[in-house]
Amino acid sequence: MLMGKVIGEIVASEKHPSHEGLKLLTVAVLELDGSLRVDAPFVAADSVGAGVGERVLITLDGFGAMSAVDRNLAPIDCAIVGIVDEIQLADTP
Amino acid sequence: MLMGKVIGEIVASEKHPSHEGLKLLTVAVLELDGSLRVDAPFVAADSVGAGVGERVLITLDGFGAMSAVDRNLAPIDCAIVGIVDEIQLADTP
Amino acid sequence: MLMGKVIGEIVASEKHPSHEGLKLLTVAVLELDGSLRVDAPFVAADSVGAGVGERVLITLDGFGAMSAVDRNLAPIDCAIVGIVDEIQLADTP
Amino acid sequence: MLMGKVIGEIVASEKHPSHEGLKLLTVAVLELDGSLRVDAPFVAADSVGAGVGERVLITLDGFGAMSAVDRNLAPIDCAIVGIVDEIQLADTP
Amino acid sequence: MLMGKVIGEIVASEKHPSHEGLKLLTVAVLELDGSLRVDAPFVAADSVGAGVGERVLITLDGFGAMSAVDRNLAPIDCAIVGIVDEIQLADTP
Repeated sequence: MLMGKVIGEIVASEKHPSHEGLKLLTVAVLELDGSLRVDAPFVAADSVGAGVGERVLITLDGFGAMSAVDRNLAPIDCAIVGIVDEIQLADTP
Repeated sequence: MLMGKVIGEIVASEKHPSHEGLKLLTVAVLELDGSLRVDAPFVAADSVGAGVGERVLITLDGFGAMSAVDRNLAPIDCAIVGIVDEIQLADTP
Repeated sequence: MLMGKVIGEIVASEKHPSHEGLKLLTVAVLELDGSLRVDAPFVAADSVGAGVGERVLITLDGFGAMSAVDRNLAPIDCAIVGIVDEIQLADTP
Repeated sequence: MLMGKVIGEIVASEKHPSHEGLKLLTVAVLELDGSLRVDAPFVAADSVGAGVGERVLITLDGFGAMSAVDRNLAPIDCAIVGIVDEIQLADTP
Repeated sequence: MLMGKVIGEIVASEKHPSHEGLKLLTVAVLELDGSLRVDAPFVAADSVGAGVGERVLITLDGFGAMSAVDRNLAPIDCAIVGIVDEIQLADTP
């Protein structure tokens, strides 16, 4: 899994029927130093009630993401599976 | 999933039999700042009637992409599963 | 899928038994501007009779690649599934 | 698999039910020269009793990671599957 | 698949039970120009008797890697499936 920050929501009127009713959020990945990755954000299906500004845990496995939102035959490859309260970092590196 | 912009169409006369009749579009990934990623574009099978210039949602999971275009045993690993109308971005980051 | 250019062939005498008889080609990925990615080339099993110098379509999904060359239990994760005749690019970006 | 160093622990109160009771550790990937990758750390489910500061082996396959922690239907795509005692490096490169 | 060079061996005393007896080798990926990628090396389970200094073919698919070493339920996502004798490169690019 990766940690990220929810930065927005996606609205798509034309979509695969199996995506109907999903909440799709854009998530920017958190780098080692806490900054946001300036690469493409992921679009994740929400399974835990996450909102914009929250730090979240995302999975990028297809089967896992489909399971997370209970749509086992839908084309979903990314899901939010946790809201991160705290990251305990040791002195390393 | 990732967001991208459809930039073209692919024509392949020699292809795997299971690809017959698929519409294959090239999709450049959208970066965090809205620019197009200057890396290899993805070639995606279309499941929603997308066209050149549109912003789309793509999945990169094999099983999901095959399901999206109803070809469960075909070598397909990328599919367009939505046309993005609107990206609501909060003030973050 | 990604587009690439076939740049060579691989000869491996010691190999997994399931790879016996496969034609393995090295494929450099095509970037957005048409140049070849100066990163590691993929080694792909051929399913369409591709040859050196041709632009091809490759899939990077394990199950899909195995299906493409009809070896469902073999350790194959990349296959050539089309020869690209033409890439129609619109004015974007 | 990749080698990494455990750099912290994650606390998530809101999470997918199947994640209940998992120990989630942040793992920075080890580069060829032994430094830590300054990219996003992975969040891995622990299956071997690893702790902060230890060098570990992680798998990034969904099915494998789920198996490693005995939760075959949970959205988990990364697991710690070994603690690295020693890396024997030859003179190459 | 990718081509790489075996650069060392891994010793892990604490490991997932299913990893018992596996030979795990570190493999640096070969770039287009023949140099070694200065990114994280992969840790691959050996299925062909490869040794340090040899150029090898690796697969990065979970199911394929598990099959290659005959451990279908083990958390393994990378395996060496061939020893590369020769890379025939055409004049391209």
